[in-house]
Amino acid sequence: MQDFFTPKSIAVIGASKEENKVGHIIFKNLYKTFKTFAVNLNTKEILGEKAYPSVKKIKEKIDLAIIAIPAEFVLQAVQQCGEHDIKHIIIVSSGFKEIGNERLEYELSKLLTKYNIKSIGPNCLGVFDAHSALDSLFLPQEKLTRPKAGGISFISQSGAVGSAVLDLLAGENVGFAKFISYGNGTNISETELLEYLGKDKQTKVICMYIEGVKEGKKFMDIAKKINKPIIVIKGGKTEQGAKAAMSHTGSLAGSYDIYKGAFKQSKIIIADSLDEMFHIAKLFEKLQTPKGKRIQVITNGGGYGILTIDALGLNNLQLAQMSSTSHAFLKHHVPKLVIISNPMDLVGDVTNERYGLALNICAKDKNIDILLVVVLHQTPLINKQITEVFRKVQGGKPIIVISTGGTTTKEISATLENINIPVFEFPEEAVHAIKKWLDYYN
Amino acid sequence: MQDFFTPKSIAVIGASKEENKVGHIIFKNLYKTFKTFAVNLNTKEILGEKAYPSVKKIKEKIDLAIIAIPAEFVLQAVQQCGEHDIKHIIIVSSGFKEIGNERLEYELSKLLTKYNIKSIGPNCLGVFDAHSALDSLFLPQEKLTRPKAGGISFISQSGAVGSAVLDLLAGENVGFAKFISYGNGTNISETELLEYLGKDKQTKVICMYIEGVKEGKKFMDIAKKINKPIIVIKGGKTEQGAKAAMSHTGSLAGSYDIYKGAFKQSKIIIADSLDEMFHIAKLFEKLQTPKGKRIQVITNGGGYGILTIDALGLNNLQLAQMSSTSHAFLKHHVPKLVIISNPMDLVGDVTNERYGLALNICAKDKNIDILLVVVLHQTPLINKQITEVFRKVQGGKPIIVISTGGTTTKEISATLENINIPVFEFPEEAVHAIKKWLDYYN
Repeated sequence: MQDFFTPKSIAVIGASKEENKVGHIIFKNLYKTFKTFAVNLNTKEILGEKAYPSVKKIKEKIDLAIIAIPAEFVLQAVQQCGEHDIKHIIIVSSGFKEIGNERLEYELSKLLTKYNIKSIGPNCLGVFDAHSALDSLFLPQEKLTRPKAGGISFISQSGAVGSAVLDLLAGENVGFAKFISYGNGTNISETELLEYLGKDKQTKVICMYIEGVKEGKKFMDIAKKINKPIIVIKGGKTEQGAKAAMSHTGSLAGSYDIYKGAFKQSKIIIADSLDEMFHIAKLFEKLQTPKGKRIQVITNGGGYGILTIDALGLNNLQLAQMSSTSHAFLKHHVPKLVIISNPMDLVGDVTNERYGLALNICAKDKNIDILLVVVLHQTPLINKQITEVFRKVQGGKPIIVISTGGTTTKEISATLENINIPVFEFPEEAVHAIKKWLDYYN
Repeated sequence: MQDFFTPKSIAVIGASKEENKVGHIIFKNLYKTFKTFAVNLNTKEILGEKAYPSVKKIKEKIDLAIIAIPAEFVLQAVQQCGEHDIKHIIIVSSGFKEIGNERLEYELSKLLTKYNIKSIGPNCLGVFDAHSALDSLFLPQEKLTRPKAGGISFISQSGAVGSAVLDLLAGENVGFAKFISYGNGTNISETELLEYLGKDKQTKVICMYIEGVKEGKKFMDIAKKINKPIIVIKGGKTEQGAKAAMSHTGSLAGSYDIYKGAFKQSKIIIADSLDEMFHIAKLFEKLQTPKGKRIQVITNGGGYGILTIDALGLNNLQLAQMSSTSHAFLKHHVPKLVIISNPMDLVGDVTNERYGLALNICAKDKNIDILLVVVLHQTPLINKQITEVFRKVQGGKPIIVISTGGTTTKEISATLENINIPVFEFPEEAVHAIKKWLDYYN
C-alpha cells in the first residue's frame, strides 16, 4: 500500500483548470512535490502543465491515480487505469452506495478485483501524509490547514470528522503521520488500513473514528497483534446514533457493549470523546514508555494542585511518595513556605530556578516515575525562559504539563510541546488522558 | 458591599514608584478610571500623582482602601483606615494564617470588627469588576489579560485558579461581571460574597471554586434562596486532595459526598472540572430560559451528527421529532441527499442558504425547543456570512453551535458568540454542559 503515500508518479483524473473544482485543488496540492500528470478530456494544459485526455496516453509508469470525476464516469476511468497497469487508486467521487447506488458500487468493486487494483474510497477525502506531503484532500489550505509531521495516524470513516480534526490540530502542536478518509471502504476496509499502519514506521499511535467494522473478528485479531497503541472512537453508540450511522455510511453499528468488550480484549483504547482521543494520542506521540506509575504533582497554584490530586485520586492513579533524601535536600534549599509533599506547592513567588530545582530532584528520585507539573504563567516571577529549565531536566522520566491562560501561556505551551513535553489546559483532561495512557501499559 | 466594586474614591496603601511592585501595578490599573489616592511614606509622587504618607492626610472621604504592604505593617494601616472612617478594605498582603501566623490574623480580625470595617482578604488577589473596571489584581495585563464585561461572576478561594481562568477566558468570548479572590476570608466569607452576588444586577450566573465552606448551613440556605444558577467546583474531593487543601487555605474540606448532597438540595450545580464550569456558565450567560427540552440536531458532517446524537442519548436528553409539516416542507425544498431526521444531515455540499432554511423551519416548529447545530466550516460551499444566517433566525429558541477547526473556525465562532450564540469545540463537551444547564430548570 506504500504507493498510496509515497508514489513516484501520480495521475489526477479530473484535474481541472477551474480553481474551485475538486480536481484543480488536488492537482495544485501535488504537482510541485510529485511527478504529477493531469488527466482531462477537455483541456490541453493546467497550471502550465500538459493535460492528457486519458491515462492511457501517459507514456510513463503511474503508481497512483486519484479519481475526481462524476460517479457515472468513474467505471470507465478505472477500466483505463486497469488497462494501463495502475495498481493504486484513490476515488474521491461520491454518488455510490451512500446515496443508494448499490449497483454502481458493485460494478466498481468487480472491476477493481478484475484488475487487481487496491483502491481507497469512493466517497472520501482520501489520504494526507504529513511526511511525504501526499495530499488528496480536496479542501483548500484556507479551509483546512494541514498539520505538521509527527507520529499520529488517523483513519476516519467520516470525512467531516477527519477534516475538522485535522484543521484543529494543525493549529496545535500535534504531529501527524498519515490521515486516511476511506469513505465507503469498497475495496480497502478499515481492517486493511489498520494492518498497514500497524507496520508503518512513521506511525507511533493509531487513532480511528469508526461507525461499523465489516469483518469484526479479523479486525480484532489484527488489532491484537499490533504492537502500538490503537485509540478508537465509535460512532453509533446509542440506538438513535446507530440509526443515524445507518443513513450516513450504511454501517451496521451493532451493540456498543459488544464492541467495547471486543475492543478491550484487543487492547484497543476506547476514547469517550474526540478531544479525549487526541489527548491520549499526544501522550503516546511525545513520551517514552514510563518505567512505573507513581506520579509526583508539582504546582505553583495551590488550588490547581488540589484539583490535580483530586483527579488522580478519582481515577485511581498512584501518587508518588518522594524519598526522604529528596525531601531533606529540598527542605534545605527552598523557602519555608514551599510545601514539600504531593502536591509539591512551589507557591506564588516561585522563580524559574525554583522550578528547576524541584524538577531535577524529582527527576532523579527513585520513588517517582512521572512528573505532572502545573505551571501557571500568571505568577509574577516566572517567565518564558522556563522552557529552558524544562529542556534541561535529565533522567528520561515522562514530564506532563498543565497550563491555563491566554496568549503568553499558549506561546510557552507551544514551545514545550515542540520539545516533546505534552501540555494540557486543565487538570481533569490531563488526568483522564494519563489514566488511559497508563492503563495501556498494564 | 457595593463600595468594593464601584467606589467613588480609592486609597492604595503601598502604592509604589517601582514598576514591578504590587502597589505600583494596582495604582496604575486604577488611577485613570477612579479618583485614586496613593499612600506611601517614602515618596511624594507616583505616576505624576501626589502621594500621601497616610490615609489620615487625605482630606476627602475614601470609600475603599486597598492594602498592599508587608504583613507586619497591615494592622497599623487598618487602624488608620478605621480612624479615617474607611469602611471597605481589600487586603492583598499575605503572611497571615496561611503561613501559620494565626495570631496576626486574629488581631486583624478583631481590629476590623472594632471599626466595623468590611474586608476582603488577606492573602488574595481581591476584586476585578469588568463593568466598572475596578481592579485590584496585582498582575500586569501582559501576564493576565482582563476579560470583557458580561454576566458571569466568579468567586475563587484560590487566587491562582482565578487568575489562570480569567486569563484564559479573556481570549475567548466569555463575559465577566465580578471576579473575587477572597483568600483567607477572615472578615468576609464565601457565604457573604454569594449572598451579595445573588442580589447583584450584573451577575446572571455565579461560579465558585471552594475548598471548604465555613458556615455550611448558612451557605446552603442562602444558595437555596438565590434565584440564579450557582455552579461550584470543589477542591479537596479525595482524601489526598483534602489534605492538600488543609495546607493550602487551612480549609477543612469535609466529605465530598456530604457536600454533594447539600449542593444538590440547594440547587447548586456541581461542575466536575474547571472547563465544564465555564461551559455551563456560558450557556446561562448567553441563552434565555428554554421553553422545553426537545433538542433538534442539525449538521453538515454525518459523523459529527452521530457523535452528537450519541452524547445526547448517553446523557438521557430528549430528541425532538419535527412536525410532519416541517418535514414535508423541507423535503420539497432541499436536495434529495439531505437526511431530514434527527440528526438532520445537510451533507457536505451545504450552502449558507440551506443552513438558513433548516434553521428557520426548526425555529418555528412547535415540536422543537432547542437547536443544536454542528457547523464544520471546512466544507467548501459555506463561508463567513453564515453568521448572518444565524443572526436572522427568529423565534427566540436557544441555538447552540458545535464547530471544530483552526483559524477560520475560531474567527466565525467568536462572531457567533458575540451575538449570544454559544459555541463549543466538540459534541461531547457541548452535551455535558447542556445536560447540567437543562437539569437546572427541572
